[in-house]
Amino acid sequence: MATLQELDTAIAEQSALFNQFKARTDPAEAVELEAARVKLGELKKSRGALLQAAGAGSKDKKKERLLLKTAKGTRDYGPAEMFCREHIEKTVKDVFHLYGGSCLDTPIFERKDVLAGKYGEDAKLIFDLKDQGGEELALRYDHTVPLARYLAMAGTTITNAKLWQVGKVYRRDNPVMSKGRMREFSQADIDFAGSWDPMIPDAEIISLLGTILAKLDVGEFTIKLNHRKILDGIFEVCGVPSEKIRSISSAVDKLDKLPWVEVKKEMTQEKGLDPIVAEKIGQYVKLKGTEAPKLLEQLLHDSTLTSNKSAKEGLSDMNILFTLLQSYGVLDKISFDMSLARGLDYYTGIIYEAIVEGSAPPGLKQADALTSTPTSESTDLTPKPDSKKKPKKKVEEEGEEEIDESQVGVGSIAAGGRYDNLVGMFLSAASGEGKKTASIPCVGVSMGLDRIFAILWPRWIERGMRSKGTMVYVMSAGDGLLQERVQLAQALREAGINTEFSFKNKPKLPAQFAAGEKDEVPFAVILGGDELKAGLVTVKEQKWEFKDGQKVKVQSEEKGTQVPRDQLIDWIKNTQTFRDWQIGKWIS
Amino acid sequence: MATLQELDTAIAEQSALFNQFKARTDPAEAVELEAARVKLGELKKSRGALLQAAGAGSKDKKKERLLLKTAKGTRDYGPAEMFCREHIEKTVKDVFHLYGGSCLDTPIFERKDVLAGKYGEDAKLIFDLKDQGGEELALRYDHTVPLARYLAMAGTTITNAKLWQVGKVYRRDNPVMSKGRMREFSQADIDFAGSWDPMIPDAEIISLLGTILAKLDVGEFTIKLNHRKILDGIFEVCGVPSEKIRSISSAVDKLDKLPWVEVKKEMTQEKGLDPIVAEKIGQYVKLKGTEAPKLLEQLLHDSTLTSNKSAKEGLSDMNILFTLLQSYGVLDKISFDMSLARGLDYYTGIIYEAIVEGSAPPGLKQADALTSTPTSESTDLTPKPDSKKKPKKKVEEEGEEEIDESQVGVGSIAAGGRYDNLVGMFLSAASGEGKKTASIPCVGVSMGLDRIFAILWPRWIERGMRSKGTMVYVMSAGDGLLQERVQLAQALREAGINTEFSFKNKPKLPAQFAAGEKDEVPFAVILGGDELKAGLVTVKEQKWEFKDGQKVKVQSEEKGTQVPRDQLIDWIKNTQTFRDWQIGKWIS
Repeated sequence: MATLQELDTAIAEQSALFNQFKARTDPAEAVELEAARVKLGELKKSRGALLQAAGAGSKDKKKERLLLKTAKGTRDYGPAEMFCREHIEKTVKDVFHLYGGSCLDTPIFERKDVLAGKYGEDAKLIFDLKDQGGEELALRYDHTVPLARYLAMAGTTITNAKLWQVGKVYRRDNPVMSKGRMREFSQADIDFAGSWDPMIPDAEIISLLGTILAKLDVGEFTIKLNHRKILDGIFEVCGVPSEKIRSISSAVDKLDKLPWVEVKKEMTQEKGLDPIVAEKIGQYVKLKGTEAPKLLEQLLHDSTLTSNKSAKEGLSDMNILFTLLQSYGVLDKISFDMSLARGLDYYTGIIYEAIVEGSAPPGLKQADALTSTPTSESTDLTPKPDSKKKPKKKVEEEGEEEIDESQVGVGSIAAGGRYDNLVGMFLSAASGEGKKTASIPCVGVSMGLDRIFAILWPRWIERGMRSKGTMVYVMSAGDGLLQERVQLAQALREAGINTEFSFKNKPKLPAQFAAGEKDEVPFAVILGGDELKAGLVTVKEQKWEFKDGQKVKVQSEEKGTQVPRDQLIDWIKNTQTFRDWQIGKWIS
Repeated sequence: MATLQELDTAIAEQSALFNQFKARTDPAEAVELEAARVKLGELKKSRGALLQAAGAGSKDKKKERLLLKTAKGTRDYGPAEMFCREHIEKTVKDVFHLYGGSCLDTPIFERKDVLAGKYGEDAKLIFDLKDQGGEELALRYDHTVPLARYLAMAGTTITNAKLWQVGKVYRRDNPVMSKGRMREFSQADIDFAGSWDPMIPDAEIISLLGTILAKLDVGEFTIKLNHRKILDGIFEVCGVPSEKIRSISSAVDKLDKLPWVEVKKEMTQEKGLDPIVAEKIGQYVKLKGTEAPKLLEQLLHDSTLTSNKSAKEGLSDMNILFTLLQSYGVLDKISFDMSLARGLDYYTGIIYEAIVEGSAPPGLKQADALTSTPTSESTDLTPKPDSKKKPKKKVEEEGEEEIDESQVGVGSIAAGGRYDNLVGMFLSAASGEGKKTASIPCVGVSMGLDRIFAILWPRWIERGMRSKGTMVYVMSAGDGLLQERVQLAQALREAGINTEFSFKNKPKLPAQFAAGEKDEVPFAVILGGDELKAGLVTVKEQKWEFKDGQKVKVQSEEKGTQVPRDQLIDWIKNTQTFRDWQIGKWIS
């Protein structure tokens, strides 16, 4: 039997081998990866058994300890954070409703064959469910594929729809928790499905996105825009062979985090592109501008480009789009950016991405030889395991890698585009005849709520935002008066006023005030035996302010106001505080 | 090689064997179950290969068809249903806030060892995630265990908290979709954790539950109440041996769906209880009453019972509780019910369950020899695979059983109780020393939102409730006016008014009216070229009414009102319709 030392060495070696295999992308090598994993597991079990056998004779045999933690890449959110997250969610949903969106709710897991083939290389990031004798299932990876399945299943009963979904999605990737990159994360999607006149729903989605970002107060933001047909046209006129277009496109996509020099190297050395062709591409993809119509004008005067059918269609679309975006009042947020390519194959028209100022990683100054605009971190919502500029790693147990969080920015906080053929793919696969079927054209956007939270939460804390919405704390001035407190609390609650009181029979006044102050409850209603007999209660309003980086109670000489008990509700509803809270002014 | 016929026979036999094994509850037999499952899978693969080989030569070789469906026991919810479900969720959350609750959000999956040992026999209903080289994970089964883990992890930083969580939980059981029994279903939980004076938080939770059910308009409801200590006391004074107490308790729990005769048989024949003891138990568990204080009085005069320490403590608690419930104004909804036992072991104090009138299954008239109160379907939120009165089944593929849905009622829609030791169990397991550690006492309730939806949704349809919240539809009277429609829509949206318009360049008026009417949009705002030049728009209000079981538009002679464009927003905000919608009167 191996010694502990021999096992530890073997485990370290096997872990390293396992890591190597994991980094490979060829699906044909999956079997070897699986074998390596199994062997690693067996070595660890042997080690465990050895330890157990060794400890069996020991007198102080401790029970096996339960590790109290959440699963890797997931976390709990407590009350204060949830107050912020619920605010973000409500803001997003309110805008969805403003634009006529309806809610769709799909299950957290799908049949595996629904997800198969939709995510390219990222398929290895899908969380599978264990085979327990039924269907093969996996956790949803995004909201888009389930939406397409829903529309395909609806068949001819749905010709057009505005559907949104807010919920968690799952990817088995390397987490960077502090920047909102986790294995379980929240996405808010809205998609317009249907055939309408060109670019109108596309413009509506971009306007909606701009409205949400403005309302959320994430700071200065930019919506980068491009068009799949323009990109394809550029590649064609530059001379990219058609079989290389997708892989060159994904190289271009890296221009937001790598300098042109490196991207060009990837194109020529890794992907075998003619350097002259690459150079020509470089002349185009450096073009970007926040005066979108100007750049469009410039491109429309490029006869090489406009002679290309695909580019011409794309540019025509952009022309219609910019006119609409001007009417929507969102054109000033747009950057028309030739380097925006996006990873997913299924986009067929415009593509866009929203980035927030200051979401670039600290210390990662990417001097791009072609542009002076600072580049932000990954533009794709999926953390890319094969990113070239990966910060220093530390090796964790099971051979998995941890990313140095200080080197990672939040990246883009929303992205999307037009994808006209996805529903058709489902219909075609379902018909089993391999023929092309009709499709429902779609355009949509996906927002990374955890990334938005990662930006907003520190500011929320900085500004000392409240974390609870209780308005009244009912207290007794030393007489207990439990039944009376209960009855009054119920009356206030029936009138729609969030109310709490101490769950003690005879609570002391200081403790009750402390409880109310902990949650910044504005109104203290104090009951006294004699007062109550006279039909009166005392109300004391309390305010807080932010001073020297801390929330402090505003000291007041006020002793409180005596109010007849049966007029208390009206009294409260007539206060400025109540009116402010009604219109949502309470969270600031 | 086996023929298709031979394989089909073998598969049918293996399926039957697999079913038999699945019904067994002894964990020691798990290996045999697994082997049976594997063999079944192999037989099916062989069959598939046989078919494929047979079809390989055929000219019309069809591509393998994709089955477009959701996973078994799960479903999508479309816009109209989500409108109802979101209303239910908002109502529940509003009440949580009224009572000072804060939101907690835990991940959808936990490490398996966190869930292990918490669910007794139901452990086989847990959805595992596939072992993909990392931690062993499983989908959460409820919100209670994650909450207890969260509190244990918080250690001394949390001494008391009022925490709620609304979200999906997962159980691999036999679904009855139409009655809200699924594998993925929504639960809304709220729990008060902390040490306070006896019964106050318990009363608060019961009041909260009653408030929610009243607001949701689920019809007449009853909250059944009992106390673990009273039950244990009853069992002791009747002479139940202590090792049989848990299993006799679970037999008593079936009294809501089985007559006493059958329950007594289970106690004596299956569980080996002395028939005399069973008879004594029968005398107690038949006791129930909606005049709770009266029954309490009766029990307090039962000297046999009050001489038992456990029963005495329980009765004393009930005394305090009823006084409080009177003050809360919820006592009239209570049924003090000696037959309420509930399955889970971890309850230590009061237990309760809410049932709705009319949630009993049709045609399943259970004449209970001891009581004339009609019994409702299962009181436990977990569909019990071993229920004796299971309605007729049909055998499905993979040998799984389908339940005849017309025979199943919705059952209880909420349940909970006090559980003082669960957090302590986690702390103890985490300390690894096997000693008892401090615990945080908890009391809480879990609501089955799908069951509530199953009750509300048919009524919603009956009453022709609206399914969208758009208030204004901006139209053009045949002049296109796309940019003008966009600009006006944006102005309305900025003012907080949900607005839509047609995504067509030159939409026809009838089509626009039809679009607005489909969603019962109350205001049509019509733009005309000349009118706009004069700074005017036309507003037409539309109403709908429910007539002869159908929603119809109220015919009106009104041609619409001309309003200056820059006064339109104020005009709309001054209508009764707008004011009604502001206070939520729009959903009726």
